[in-house]
Amino acid sequence: MKVLVSLGGNAILRRGEKGTADEQAANVRSTSKQLVRLVQVGAKLAITHGNGPQVGNILLQNELAKAELPAMPLDICGAESQGMIGYLLEVGLESELKRAGLDAPISAIVTRVAVDPLDEAFRHPTKPVGPFYSETEAARLRGERGWQITSDSGRGYRRVVPSPKPLDILEKKVIRSLYDAGTIVVSAGGGGVPVVVNENGEISGVEAVLDKDRTAALLANVLGVETLLILTDVERVYLNYGTPEERPLDRLSVEECRRYLDEGQFPSGSMGPKIEGAVSFLEGGGVRAIIASLDNAESALSGKTGTFIER
Amino acid sequence: MKVLVSLGGNAILRRGEKGTADEQAANVRSTSKQLVRLVQVGAKLAITHGNGPQVGNILLQNELAKAELPAMPLDICGAESQGMIGYLLEVGLESELKRAGLDAPISAIVTRVAVDPLDEAFRHPTKPVGPFYSETEAARLRGERGWQITSDSGRGYRRVVPSPKPLDILEKKVIRSLYDAGTIVVSAGGGGVPVVVNENGEISGVEAVLDKDRTAALLANVLGVETLLILTDVERVYLNYGTPEERPLDRLSVEECRRYLDEGQFPSGSMGPKIEGAVSFLEGGGVRAIIASLDNAESALSGKTGTFIER
Repeated sequence: MKVLVSLGGNAILRRGEKGTADEQAANVRSTSKQLVRLVQVGAKLAITHGNGPQVGNILLQNELAKAELPAMPLDICGAESQGMIGYLLEVGLESELKRAGLDAPISAIVTRVAVDPLDEAFRHPTKPVGPFYSETEAARLRGERGWQITSDSGRGYRRVVPSPKPLDILEKKVIRSLYDAGTIVVSAGGGGVPVVVNENGEISGVEAVLDKDRTAALLANVLGVETLLILTDVERVYLNYGTPEERPLDRLSVEECRRYLDEGQFPSGSMGPKIEGAVSFLEGGGVRAIIASLDNAESALSGKTGTFIER
Repeated sequence: MKVLVSLGGNAILRRGEKGTADEQAANVRSTSKQLVRLVQVGAKLAITHGNGPQVGNILLQNELAKAELPAMPLDICGAESQGMIGYLLEVGLESELKRAGLDAPISAIVTRVAVDPLDEAFRHPTKPVGPFYSETEAARLRGERGWQITSDSGRGYRRVVPSPKPLDILEKKVIRSLYDAGTIVVSAGGGGVPVVVNENGEISGVEAVLDKDRTAALLANVLGVETLLILTDVERVYLNYGTPEERPLDRLSVEECRRYLDEGQFPSGSMGPKIEGAVSFLEGGGVRAIIASLDNAESALSGKTGTFIER
């Protein structure tokens, strides 16, 4: 059973934690125990993951050190976070596999994802990244760096960047060949590092962020997996989430997904992109997408919990 | 012709540069032009690289931001630098290959390298890493973090870490399978992230740095290449370097290497590890090691310049 697992931010860094190396390593160990159970019930795993908190910290470190060292742009910070998280997953997962008496090669691939330079998202940056600024700092950064900065719900000012549609995973052949040969491939972390490829094939990074679940859908189709397992911090998808009419969903069809998305049931900052990723995966040939809690990965895969989305 | 190229720090960041993203990308483009020439004369390339300046900057950013964010340990910073440099090489080299009408998959692998926890190096840390400190800071860090800190040639105080011997590249099967299938694999950046593997197979990172050319020798043997091409900022290996008796060497035998190493001809901070790497590669089955200037990679490979070391 071929499965791509898309790990949410909580798989590596939990809300309220400071993000020390020990905390992250412990979370990855705990996540890895869940992943090992999937292997034990026969899943042939590939893994992708978010990078929001990590790239946020790297951006903040760049900001705080900028008087002494040139700050790196978003694409390079994203690649750094892929190295960091890829390494943590290699160490944690390989250790847990060994502990369970299993042995499978694991490999983390630095992954670039092509986007369209004419993607409408570049004209309407919406995705907040990096630290909060005061109004004065915000005005200065708008002038100095040409950043687009908006007020973020009373907590200060924050840079917003475009979130274009992922079109092509540049390392797809390598990722696919490793996966087909039995390697647990960790790739497209944080949705991949966004790049544009010009007509001559030359590549350059862009200041944008990709949604990890939209890229996960693309990756899942590239790998030809039947199941896309999106692990997050809620048990299921809900209608009317957070209201007295809240209702958990066991199953969803693609049509229901579309209708509820149109109705605004799934906010763009959280469940929306997961549902969109699921729909895109199924349209691209996938059999089932499951959205479930990280803590119940295995029972979700066997249909006991989580929300199943099928064609 | 199978060739592992070991790129020195100057391939990505040159002395006197601040290390902006634009500078690094431009250096990588220029390095990539040299690498493309190797491909054009028939070399089947694998690549490894140093990470000294980059991991130094990441460590300094961690230091400067530590009041707000937990500082990451050396192993994680090393993995971040592999992500950063791997990405830069993927972008630069793929662009230059396309410009030359060539097409080869490129992939950067986050690489761990096992060391012996009983390696004598752990009792005698020698390798300076990260920023300079004042005497007061040095004393505080010795106490707070248990770091070993020594005075560095009058320029201040600096942390020193062990540089144990690289024993095993944990991603070796993956790297080898990709290389054999025609991928230009970038791996073991900065000598690899050092880890120890305990008797149960559990893995943990260690606070150490590996010498990139010693790891390159191991990697070259794993890949089964005939040629290890170590590219640096000097034209050849010299005897009596920097003295009036300075003499360039066109050829060296393994025995001469050993004798000159014993005589202290090659300083441990620069040429020493390259010669040691070359010897270790040849003893492990390699045919020739070449030490040459990055700017003349192709003429060195064809024997017109550089120092050839053979069994």
